[in-house]
Amino acid sequence: MDKFSFGLWTVGWQGRDPFGDATRPVLDAPLAVRKLAELGAWGVTLHDDDLIPFGSDAAERDRRLGEFRAALDETGLVVPMVTTNLFTHPVFKDGGFTSNDRGVRRFALRKVLRNLELAASLGAETVVLWGGREGSEVDAGKDVRAALDRYREALDLIAQHSIDQGYGLRFALEPKPNEPRGDILLPTIGHALAFISTLQHHELVGVNPEVGHEQMAGLNFVHGIAQALWQGKLFHIDLNGQKGPRYDQDLVFGHGDLLSAFFLVDLLEGGGYEGPRHFDYKPLRTEDLEGVWVSAAANMRTYRLLRERATAFRHDPEVQEALRVSGVAQLSMPTLSRGESIVDFLAGADVDPEVAGARGYGFVRLSQLALEHLLGAR
Amino acid sequence: MDKFSFGLWTVGWQGRDPFGDATRPVLDAPLAVRKLAELGAWGVTLHDDDLIPFGSDAAERDRRLGEFRAALDETGLVVPMVTTNLFTHPVFKDGGFTSNDRGVRRFALRKVLRNLELAASLGAETVVLWGGREGSEVDAGKDVRAALDRYREALDLIAQHSIDQGYGLRFALEPKPNEPRGDILLPTIGHALAFISTLQHHELVGVNPEVGHEQMAGLNFVHGIAQALWQGKLFHIDLNGQKGPRYDQDLVFGHGDLLSAFFLVDLLEGGGYEGPRHFDYKPLRTEDLEGVWVSAAANMRTYRLLRERATAFRHDPEVQEALRVSGVAQLSMPTLSRGESIVDFLAGADVDPEVAGARGYGFVRLSQLALEHLLGAR
Amino acid sequence: MDKFSFGLWTVGWQGRDPFGDATRPVLDAPLAVRKLAELGAWGVTLHDDDLIPFGSDAAERDRRLGEFRAALDETGLVVPMVTTNLFTHPVFKDGGFTSNDRGVRRFALRKVLRNLELAASLGAETVVLWGGREGSEVDAGKDVRAALDRYREALDLIAQHSIDQGYGLRFALEPKPNEPRGDILLPTIGHALAFISTLQHHELVGVNPEVGHEQMAGLNFVHGIAQALWQGKLFHIDLNGQKGPRYDQDLVFGHGDLLSAFFLVDLLEGGGYEGPRHFDYKPLRTEDLEGVWVSAAANMRTYRLLRERATAFRHDPEVQEALRVSGVAQLSMPTLSRGESIVDFLAGADVDPEVAGARGYGFVRLSQLALEHLLGAR
Amino acid sequence: MDKFSFGLWTVGWQGRDPFGDATRPVLDAPLAVRKLAELGAWGVTLHDDDLIPFGSDAAERDRRLGEFRAALDETGLVVPMVTTNLFTHPVFKDGGFTSNDRGVRRFALRKVLRNLELAASLGAETVVLWGGREGSEVDAGKDVRAALDRYREALDLIAQHSIDQGYGLRFALEPKPNEPRGDILLPTIGHALAFISTLQHHELVGVNPEVGHEQMAGLNFVHGIAQALWQGKLFHIDLNGQKGPRYDQDLVFGHGDLLSAFFLVDLLEGGGYEGPRHFDYKPLRTEDLEGVWVSAAANMRTYRLLRERATAFRHDPEVQEALRVSGVAQLSMPTLSRGESIVDFLAGADVDPEVAGARGYGFVRLSQLALEHLLGAR
Repeated sequence: MDKFSFGLWTVGWQGRDPFGDATRPVLDAPLAVRKLAELGAWGVTLHDDDLIPFGSDAAERDRRLGEFRAALDETGLVVPMVTTNLFTHPVFKDGGFTSNDRGVRRFALRKVLRNLELAASLGAETVVLWGGREGSEVDAGKDVRAALDRYREALDLIAQHSIDQGYGLRFALEPKPNEPRGDILLPTIGHALAFISTLQHHELVGVNPEVGHEQMAGLNFVHGIAQALWQGKLFHIDLNGQKGPRYDQDLVFGHGDLLSAFFLVDLLEGGGYEGPRHFDYKPLRTEDLEGVWVSAAANMRTYRLLRERATAFRHDPEVQEALRVSGVAQLSMPTLSRGESIVDFLAGADVDPEVAGARGYGFVRLSQLALEHLLGAR
Repeated sequence: MDKFSFGLWTVGWQGRDPFGDATRPVLDAPLAVRKLAELGAWGVTLHDDDLIPFGSDAAERDRRLGEFRAALDETGLVVPMVTTNLFTHPVFKDGGFTSNDRGVRRFALRKVLRNLELAASLGAETVVLWGGREGSEVDAGKDVRAALDRYREALDLIAQHSIDQGYGLRFALEPKPNEPRGDILLPTIGHALAFISTLQHHELVGVNPEVGHEQMAGLNFVHGIAQALWQGKLFHIDLNGQKGPRYDQDLVFGHGDLLSAFFLVDLLEGGGYEGPRHFDYKPLRTEDLEGVWVSAAANMRTYRLLRERATAFRHDPEVQEALRVSGVAQLSMPTLSRGESIVDFLAGADVDPEVAGARGYGFVRLSQLALEHLLGAR
Repeated sequence: MDKFSFGLWTVGWQGRDPFGDATRPVLDAPLAVRKLAELGAWGVTLHDDDLIPFGSDAAERDRRLGEFRAALDETGLVVPMVTTNLFTHPVFKDGGFTSNDRGVRRFALRKVLRNLELAASLGAETVVLWGGREGSEVDAGKDVRAALDRYREALDLIAQHSIDQGYGLRFALEPKPNEPRGDILLPTIGHALAFISTLQHHELVGVNPEVGHEQMAGLNFVHGIAQALWQGKLFHIDLNGQKGPRYDQDLVFGHGDLLSAFFLVDLLEGGGYEGPRHFDYKPLRTEDLEGVWVSAAANMRTYRLLRERATAFRHDPEVQEALRVSGVAQLSMPTLSRGESIVDFLAGADVDPEVAGARGYGFVRLSQLALEHLLGAR
Repeated sequence: MDKFSFGLWTVGWQGRDPFGDATRPVLDAPLAVRKLAELGAWGVTLHDDDLIPFGSDAAERDRRLGEFRAALDETGLVVPMVTTNLFTHPVFKDGGFTSNDRGVRRFALRKVLRNLELAASLGAETVVLWGGREGSEVDAGKDVRAALDRYREALDLIAQHSIDQGYGLRFALEPKPNEPRGDILLPTIGHALAFISTLQHHELVGVNPEVGHEQMAGLNFVHGIAQALWQGKLFHIDLNGQKGPRYDQDLVFGHGDLLSAFFLVDLLEGGGYEGPRHFDYKPLRTEDLEGVWVSAAANMRTYRLLRERATAFRHDPEVQEALRVSGVAQLSMPTLSRGESIVDFLAGADVDPEVAGARGYGFVRLSQLALEHLLGAR
């Protein structure tokens, strides 16, 4: 079964934006679970506050959780990932782990630590951490190096707690360049991977990249995912659509840069990623509830279509020939020969640069073959 | 003395752009050295081909080098950094270390390895590697994971060669998101730092971030530099100006995002960076040679002015008070108390989120104080 | 007195953003008026719904209006501009004048027409129309040509109504490229000016450009304002700050691209613009009410400082000499001589392109002189 | 026959970029003509200097022209458009029509005026004017209002000359936001349309929008084309591909934002545009001559495929039903009823905003239907 999962907050988004009020009513979590199951989803994910409103008492919590578990049991949906909301409440306005206010940092850290138990109890394997409020608008207002110290302190403690409690969780940082803060810390896949390399339990921490977040910085998402895979750090992924640098659009997967979506599916399917295909999108504010479900289904349908197209692309003999001409596989061959020393290498003869500079790489042909496969025209 | 350095290719840029021919004649390297010294620069840097045109024979090489050394001796200018041109010649059109063509990879690697000797002989401490051609326009044409393997192979060999030969060099990767390739590998400071963490001799490899390159991705350069410093990896820096996501402008330092330049100087001066302040800019194509020297001087003058303003900012008691109110220094305090266990911590009492959410952080006041200091108005 | 004005919605912004709840309480309009007056503002502006909540009955409306007028009388603040909210309520989710739903279009048009009376009764000279919901996320969902027909229909009716009723109002369209819609119609100053040229009462309709809106598209705001002035269409202006293509930040004026802000003030002061200097910004969500007033004052203080710097720049003999060398004033000289026919002109002799191509324009010197004046360093 | 045309400079691009030398030899114009004909093109376009190198004498000019005409005669290719190069030579470094140097302005204007004869003699209907050098990097260096005066002067003279000489030409301005200048005048379709409305012979002047140029500003190209069509000003179009705000990529049509390309073809085919489908792209620098021809063919093939998909989309009953539900056609109905006065209208009853705000517009369904048609999956 395809591991398609959806955040409760995606289909449940009420359409409140910076300039407008909600256009849709609250969506009950158990209803969302049942409807997603009906559409063929495999999993559902959540922030703590999606399920149990901020400030709920124990009874309310138990009631909500009970209804949610019942819906899971009934439908067979799994909860592969849980995350913690450190951004909605005003207390987090200057960040959670990296707020200038130590009381807030302690509040945030406790909220995450406590949420690990919920994650484990729901059977989640991955806990995502999106630090959307960790950042600044004013460079003078945030000591970034101190903030990274605190960010590391928090991650080290969280990983330690999971180990201590035997939760067996893995953690995935979700980078984003900006919005809601003017500039967010760890703004790209790269910055997050670099930060992770400094952590005490770095082996437990990877990334949860989101299509639109990298594209907000004009970066090639497929390249970013390839580097995350290469570093063994693609723990989770958020699929959606975005039209380049602007506000975070969270369009349906494929409804942004479609060629990039095609190559992304090609990479995920061929690159050894086994985790959930998690759709972190928002149904347009213009849609009613029926449109919400249409949009949810569209994500899965598009993924499947792109997978079909990518498979056909890889199996087309003309594509294989074009890849050969372009030398794509040749790049897997080490630059030095086996056993060749640097000294020997330096004594060797160069290619004639004029000759090597004149060859064609045939990349446009490859690009057009991909486009035609994507269009179902081959 | 201020460690202001300039690339030979900066003042020597002839004004050739994608739509226009050169507007200025070739600038002789020794003349550039003498003129930069006269303007008060401390160092000069170069690509191999800036000094010794690609394909020169040994006699030509010796003549050029001799004249250059004479100018250095005469003026006292140092050569703190040397880099290798892996982008101008057609042979590098699909990259150097990561070209799909193994012959090209070997050609590129030899070019860099051989250039280390020149770097060492000129007394350089740092070798910069800008992989401007390492990338792709067509996702199908480049196996990014294989490319990163080859990139790592190259870096490991280069560092090893420096060790073997006793050159004592350090290496600095220069990230850039795109241009001249559609998408360049290691597109940001973050991606480069992450990659470096996987290298055999990672301790010898850092980054050489360029103001405009990060700003082409809409990223906060000051934040990026702070992370590089935090990871101990700011080995060199390229100062210039850029007006956001568009072609690489290489404006005079400060002539782009001036507020960011102010906070950058503030960070460099207060953040323990001891290396060169290297201007990697291009005199506008509309300028004649006199304009070239005016623009070179403008970089240094602007840096000094910003340093003065930053110093005054940090010494202003009102600023200090505003920083205190904003809690900037408080972020250096660990979130957990000394000796506090996670279990104890979890048992503790939270701040009241409504109260903590109501406090003001005073960031706008800080921002305005910085602006007024920048304007020399306080 | 400086014509500094503020929207009620600016200081009154409660800090609700796409990812977070309000951080500040409702700000009473009369209080805002009194406080702005105290800070030295000259005018206050408003959307209908800022003052009279959507759906208020007549009594509520009268009460609110009465208190507001009392505050105006008491403080002497004027209301130079009024605008209509066609974006907050769900009914406008697909637009107002260009909603696919004719009932909504009629609702929106009536809301604006009725609001003209309020505008006139408050003494406003200008009515701004920001069509933030006029647009689409899905190209198939909006017939743009039909939408422009409806947009024109609405503008023609509104202008006619003002004429018929003797309101004497002028109208100013406010362009924005995106957010809250994926793509907004009339996305830039240029598109709005072009559209206006097709209107029945085009002489009554101009533009209200906002700094950040043009910069979200990476456009040069100073150039855009110059074109608007050149076409006689700068009817109003929204001053604020933005850090390039990303979500709409509405920073304090000058807290984004400071060099551009300098040249903007230089142009406004020297370019014949006599209208309000209207600050359309948002106090950062991290600020409390005290921070709100600090930020309001910062806008005015920055404008005045930039005006001082621009005046000094224009009066500096070295700047005047540099402008002369750059040939800036020469551009006001027609290309053909008085009375020169095209035939005579074509028979004339060309400059030697090699000579003319070799001259320097000295633009970098000008740029540096401006920067040094901005820094108060000359 | 499909009116597919190519610039000589497209297939003839040698691959010189800001960081690299040419990778392909000069392509002879007659050879380009023959090869394009063989691939099925209908027309070829050119800058004066593409055909007759800058500075050629009369004999050289005659020889080149003769060979070119022979190739046209032989192949039947037409020359629907001619343009003038005002950007390559250093003389244009501060612009052509708007250079601060009057001698340069006169030089540029003569170059264009003289080129009209060539255009007319080759049977061109349209003369394109791309003012790539009309702009600035330094706001103080260009009086934009004076520049627009000169721009208008030039356009008025050019149109007058065409009338006087009976050339029967139409003129099309090509907007671009930046590159090679930091900021270019008339940066978008909108700014150009607005400027045109001020011209003496405005009926002879329209626009030649280029896909990538609008997308460099993050603007929706389909919306821009719709506005140009709505204003009766789409005189010519440049088709290519671009990956958002960055350097001008000139990718093969469809190889950038594919969904937008689909909706563009849909609009062009259904929107009454009868002019050439002109491909203004650059074969990647990595390609050899064979790759050049592959890339040229790819443009035409992609256009045809997108047209097929768009036709199927429009004929699909489910799409028609979805369009009906979304109310797309309803937008063509005037907001006021025939004969309805404003007074009557104001007296009418409003829709209930709560009800109208609750309806769904079904845009996501439309979007998904378009995507599936594009993918050939329906």
